[in-house]
Amino acid sequence: MATTPMKPLQVGLLGIGTVGLGTWTVLRRNAEEIARRAGRPIRITWIAEKSIERARELTQGATDVQLTDDAKLVLANPDIDIVVELIGGIEPARTFILQAIANGKHVVTANKALLARHGNEIFAAAHANGVMVAFEGAVAGGIPIIKALREGLTANRIEWIAGIINGTSNFILSEMRARGASFASVLKEAQQRGYAEADPTFDVEGVDAAHKLTIMSAIAFGVPMQFDKVYTEGISKLTQEDIRYAEELGYRIKLLGITRRAAAGIELRVHPTLIPTKRLIANVEGVMNAVLVKGDAVGATMYYGAGAGAEPTASAVIADLVDVTRMHTADPEHRVPHLAFQPDQLSDIPFLPMGEVETSYYLRMRVQDRPGVLADITRILADREISIDAMIQKEPSEGEDQTDIILLTHRTVEKHVVDAIAKIEALPTVKGKVVRIRLEELN
Amino acid sequence: MATTPMKPLQVGLLGIGTVGLGTWTVLRRNAEEIARRAGRPIRITWIAEKSIERARELTQGATDVQLTDDAKLVLANPDIDIVVELIGGIEPARTFILQAIANGKHVVTANKALLARHGNEIFAAAHANGVMVAFEGAVAGGIPIIKALREGLTANRIEWIAGIINGTSNFILSEMRARGASFASVLKEAQQRGYAEADPTFDVEGVDAAHKLTIMSAIAFGVPMQFDKVYTEGISKLTQEDIRYAEELGYRIKLLGITRRAAAGIELRVHPTLIPTKRLIANVEGVMNAVLVKGDAVGATMYYGAGAGAEPTASAVIADLVDVTRMHTADPEHRVPHLAFQPDQLSDIPFLPMGEVETSYYLRMRVQDRPGVLADITRILADREISIDAMIQKEPSEGEDQTDIILLTHRTVEKHVVDAIAKIEALPTVKGKVVRIRLEELN
Repeated sequence: MATTPMKPLQVGLLGIGTVGLGTWTVLRRNAEEIARRAGRPIRITWIAEKSIERARELTQGATDVQLTDDAKLVLANPDIDIVVELIGGIEPARTFILQAIANGKHVVTANKALLARHGNEIFAAAHANGVMVAFEGAVAGGIPIIKALREGLTANRIEWIAGIINGTSNFILSEMRARGASFASVLKEAQQRGYAEADPTFDVEGVDAAHKLTIMSAIAFGVPMQFDKVYTEGISKLTQEDIRYAEELGYRIKLLGITRRAAAGIELRVHPTLIPTKRLIANVEGVMNAVLVKGDAVGATMYYGAGAGAEPTASAVIADLVDVTRMHTADPEHRVPHLAFQPDQLSDIPFLPMGEVETSYYLRMRVQDRPGVLADITRILADREISIDAMIQKEPSEGEDQTDIILLTHRTVEKHVVDAIAKIEALPTVKGKVVRIRLEELN
Repeated sequence: MATTPMKPLQVGLLGIGTVGLGTWTVLRRNAEEIARRAGRPIRITWIAEKSIERARELTQGATDVQLTDDAKLVLANPDIDIVVELIGGIEPARTFILQAIANGKHVVTANKALLARHGNEIFAAAHANGVMVAFEGAVAGGIPIIKALREGLTANRIEWIAGIINGTSNFILSEMRARGASFASVLKEAQQRGYAEADPTFDVEGVDAAHKLTIMSAIAFGVPMQFDKVYTEGISKLTQEDIRYAEELGYRIKLLGITRRAAAGIELRVHPTLIPTKRLIANVEGVMNAVLVKGDAVGATMYYGAGAGAEPTASAVIADLVDVTRMHTADPEHRVPHLAFQPDQLSDIPFLPMGEVETSYYLRMRVQDRPGVLADITRILADREISIDAMIQKEPSEGEDQTDIILLTHRTVEKHVVDAIAKIEALPTVKGKVVRIRLEELN
């Protein structure tokens, strides 16, 4: 090999926002320790940032870095070995990454939205140009979950993954449960504390989790990324009473991203989910993330940590930089394939439409307190072969003639439940809509 | 490169015991999926086993594997690329591994006792011969913790690691707490269920955990392995009353392996530890393992899964096989260093003697219920600058004049506590020995 071992690896950073600054800071603070691991120093020598002012302020007059507001200068610079894209969003990030790849540069990115939507195009370009695109920071922040799935569990046929992969939603659910507060009031507080964006849709409606789930699913099952196949349902309609009834039944409600290899295809879904309180993952609170992976040989393993934030995400970005540093002069055949499986070995297993998914359900309905109501409801369920696992029927409050019935079903097919709910809602003794939340035992 | 891409990688297996059989089974069951990831098939072509009869029975007449009772035939076979050592124990495993390395073969092993005691010798030999020695299966079974520490967290200055890394001990402690049973009775049950050996010393006295901790400490801090420096204390003396008092104070007792980078040196210790019940790791029950790692950038991350058993450990062994398969024709400079840091970059930070370690303490003592007793005890503590965080003093039972005092201290240096305990035990009003259990907040 022609490289001198201790020549620094030169990194061009695109974007010095929260994670960009974290990467800059950690790479300098731990420079010596990182070089001892990587075998050579890793240095950010160029930063492209829309506001050079901002970049100058944040780098505090460091003289060993060039600043520019023109990303193309970084992408075209022959001295740069690796481009780190931390701009986020689809454009111009996509164009910059494809340009970097075309210029023969390796890429490290934490851009989950981009990979979930354009990952297939990007990885194909990387493969054609013989470069690496590393993306540990794109899923679950500092938790090395991509490495675990792609390298740590290679012996396994992965059966399913269930993850708390959006810290904002988990913080809101934790606070709603702990303090008995409403979704709206906790969201407001999360926004004040900087845990939620002014427009929280991406986080609370499950879009961000769906991006991360798309990436994990592709790696786990050796399929192309298909973000448009994710069923997505957020937490904004969850109420205190459902959280309390779930607790009474021994369950906790979490926003889970779930992907499972079922007989007929791959499930890919993000939704609020009742999970048994005794499971470790049910006890992951606040902004923390955790991913539970079930493999046929290893059984259940779980990975827990900070899913966002400047330095946790920088930890993942820099781990990728060290991996790329080790491998960047090696033959591509020695590298870990981008999507865990060799690119010519991807599978075309179909994704399952949500109606075909099999899971359990929590159903809550408001009914008139009179004889025969329960019989009508259970008859509708039985006709669709939906069997009941547990039930709560409350005494009506003083002077009221309406009450709540809560049912937990055994595993059944979603479309049958949708059908049963329509029939139940049509009963004259049932008031309003039936609340339906999915339930997973995760065993 | 001269290799034909799809030529199977040939593995020689030494020992077809529990984990050996698991490796054989999983490698065959998931052969197609593993080849899709590794880029070529991985096949066990030779098995060396003391009892050829046993090997023949377990491989069920497979015709594509050679069986022998002479390991040297495997070690010397020029067709074999990787030797998997699953014999366990020090000899002949050590001699076989060194011979494999001398013959230019890569090695995969799950032998924690051997690595903790002779790892430095083995890794030096591997380095000199340009081969890899992979050992994911040696720590925490199927949890990819070695990969996380060595590759996933390379950006971090690791601050400490605390792990539940012995399933037998954790099973015993979980059962003692859940059922109010004694150590002796739960141990007996664990032996009947096959969770504990006939001679349980290795597991319940912390020796097995100390082996694993030695390996993790070396990787986390870039120091040579020094098993003789581990302070080891087991769980055999724990009583029901301490488990109950801990619970009352909001803590749970776990056997932890702890290694920490303190100002004066590296702590390396295995002992029963009170940890806050609200911590996720306090809720890891039964035979499961979990390792909590604190890095300066990533914060706390945790890795959870089955720490032993045939297929979980096979999962780790095969992940190593896939890694070695990818890298075995690459230049050694591209490989991950055995101990995470480049071999010429190890550090000589000293290990701290236990007397110098700083932690908190749970102290339980039996005292005569008379005025001034508590004043005497707290005076002894105050004289050594040990401050008290919480206290329980029980009313004496009807007709008794003795009672229990339980104290939790703030962080202090161990030798001062040892000294204080000697003085407290010398008080005429204190009966018998003071029970001392260390306490960690793990935050």
